[in-house]
Amino acid sequence: MSFNAKIKAEILKTLIEVTSPLVSEVKLNIGKDGISLRAVDPAHVAMVDLQLNKEAFEEYQADEMELGIDIDRLNAIMRLSSTGDIVSLEYDEKNNRLIVKVGNLTRKMALIDTAGMPDPKMPTLDLPGKVILKASEITKGVKASESISDHLALIVTDDAFEVFAEGDTDIVNLKLPKDSLVELESDGKYKSLFSIDYLNNMIKPLKGDIPITIKVGNDNPTRVEFDIAESKGHVIYLLAPRIESE
Amino acid sequence: MSFNAKIKAEILKTLIEVTSPLVSEVKLNIGKDGISLRAVDPAHVAMVDLQLNKEAFEEYQADEMELGIDIDRLNAIMRLSSTGDIVSLEYDEKNNRLIVKVGNLTRKMALIDTAGMPDPKMPTLDLPGKVILKASEITKGVKASESISDHLALIVTDDAFEVFAEGDTDIVNLKLPKDSLVELESDGKYKSLFSIDYLNNMIKPLKGDIPITIKVGNDNPTRVEFDIAESKGHVIYLLAPRIESE
Amino acid sequence: MSFNAKIKAEILKTLIEVTSPLVSEVKLNIGKDGISLRAVDPAHVAMVDLQLNKEAFEEYQADEMELGIDIDRLNAIMRLSSTGDIVSLEYDEKNNRLIVKVGNLTRKMALIDTAGMPDPKMPTLDLPGKVILKASEITKGVKASESISDHLALIVTDDAFEVFAEGDTDIVNLKLPKDSLVELESDGKYKSLFSIDYLNNMIKPLKGDIPITIKVGNDNPTRVEFDIAESKGHVIYLLAPRIESE
Repeated sequence: MSFNAKIKAEILKTLIEVTSPLVSEVKLNIGKDGISLRAVDPAHVAMVDLQLNKEAFEEYQADEMELGIDIDRLNAIMRLSSTGDIVSLEYDEKNNRLIVKVGNLTRKMALIDTAGMPDPKMPTLDLPGKVILKASEITKGVKASESISDHLALIVTDDAFEVFAEGDTDIVNLKLPKDSLVELESDGKYKSLFSIDYLNNMIKPLKGDIPITIKVGNDNPTRVEFDIAESKGHVIYLLAPRIESE
Repeated sequence: MSFNAKIKAEILKTLIEVTSPLVSEVKLNIGKDGISLRAVDPAHVAMVDLQLNKEAFEEYQADEMELGIDIDRLNAIMRLSSTGDIVSLEYDEKNNRLIVKVGNLTRKMALIDTAGMPDPKMPTLDLPGKVILKASEITKGVKASESISDHLALIVTDDAFEVFAEGDTDIVNLKLPKDSLVELESDGKYKSLFSIDYLNNMIKPLKGDIPITIKVGNDNPTRVEFDIAESKGHVIYLLAPRIESE
Repeated sequence: MSFNAKIKAEILKTLIEVTSPLVSEVKLNIGKDGISLRAVDPAHVAMVDLQLNKEAFEEYQADEMELGIDIDRLNAIMRLSSTGDIVSLEYDEKNNRLIVKVGNLTRKMALIDTAGMPDPKMPTLDLPGKVILKASEITKGVKASESISDHLALIVTDDAFEVFAEGDTDIVNLKLPKDSLVELESDGKYKSLFSIDYLNNMIKPLKGDIPITIKVGNDNPTRVEFDIAESKGHVIYLLAPRIESE
């Protein structure tokens, strides 16, 4: 069983940023055509699914296998890498370790037994409201809402996308009409409520103006998707709704 | 009763920086020619008076009225604005709210009842020592003093401005001779002691090399003034003296 | 007894950065040709020796004397200086103070009685493994190790320099082969263990790519040296080994 790959440091850091808010350990599914992971947070509120095609790597050679990764350990060495560094990953079957090399620096990282690790299924969702917008917009809406409430509504209508939060005295509203969105597809009004803490975790890895896709239904989960690694990788984030108490 | 205005984000942020160290709530006096505020800290040691002419605004239309503002709430949305953003302010009389818009983001902010809010009078002061200097100079003098004492003296003589602090063992002294000042007017030596904590609050909104005017008497308050909003606004800061214990 | 000198702010800051992790008070030995200091931390694990030739100063005039410096006090005024500022130092014999001036700012700093202050001797050490490398390399090795252990090994062989740390599950290794070092001199393998806390203090003042010399023996202290002040000054850092418990 072998796994030998080289990848740009910033792509591996994105994998860490996407996964670490939800879980401390993750199972990497290594395949012939790339790697993938799927993780659910302990409270079962959010799921992240990440794919990295082998084209996202500088070099890639792998048998099919699972690697149990402690994300803090991987992050400890990745924090010492710089943009432009190439990171080498090698499976050491004998010692059950992943050997991570950045330049002259090596970390031989113990792997975690994947036997007990979950294999979450991606639920099938019917989410009829869909928008594509710049990441910075949703970031601004979440940040503005967190000062007045612990939850907010994502709303897609036939002519706009809205973030809406209501506190004891104040209201925050981000309204993006159709012409300030990259794309909008909706035959009506769809609205669900979400935890701002979870949305804050979700927006952490989002950089500047990358386009992200948000799908919304009525009192249903939201599905947020964006490309990584120059479109040679993809992230799907699912977040369960909060049920309106009124 | 209507109030509708547009203003550069950085000017509104200056208003927050000047006011927030002293009070958490402030009454804005809205007039036909601009807005003003006057606030005194709970210990009655410092007073700030701020004027913004209607020329400081991009658009301005107002009846005379008072708006009670919670500064933290205003700051929460202003923190999400960028330099160059234009902020729209609109009084919603029906709901007693101020509607603050930055781009596509809206905060409908509950107003505070101004009935109980103080209307401090600006005391008439005879402060015969006057200097104009770069803001960065007074900032340096206060920062150097805070490591040895909790109070310092501001001193104006006929040929220099000085900041003087004395600790148990050490002395800090900033001496600016007349030729390194923008202006000096004094017929003798004037000296008063002030709390460094309060001075630290006062210097927070001071940026780089803007000229500030400082007036000093003997054991009297100091009056510090500077322009904001490209001279279309003005701040006066009064600070009561500490009485020398010797 | 007189001491009058002018020096670039950044050189005086380096003196503070080198010394402050080990001691809070230090004796400066003032001589006709420059100043020096030698300090040992309270646990007697690390020693620092610093020399500044009079050529490192803009102006220098001194009788031989000792000055007891409280490093926090010196740092308080130096923090307000900028790169390029010239700092003036003057001994005030009458008041037993050091008068430190940065621009218009003066701190008259009480001196500490040097009578009780130690005069540590530099031990003679036979350390046959010697390498010269870029400061950033050792910094990276120490930072990578601190996530898995509280100590690491420095190893010099006849063809490489290595940093090696072993935790409960993981191994960190920085290996610099001869051709990626500035210089290597060793007739065999030399290895000693050191505390990562102390190494972290040692690397703090190291900037970017300056060359540093590291000497290693077997279970012996390490000696780390580097130039400061454009080679008109020099720092020697000695660190006692930790004894391997196996």
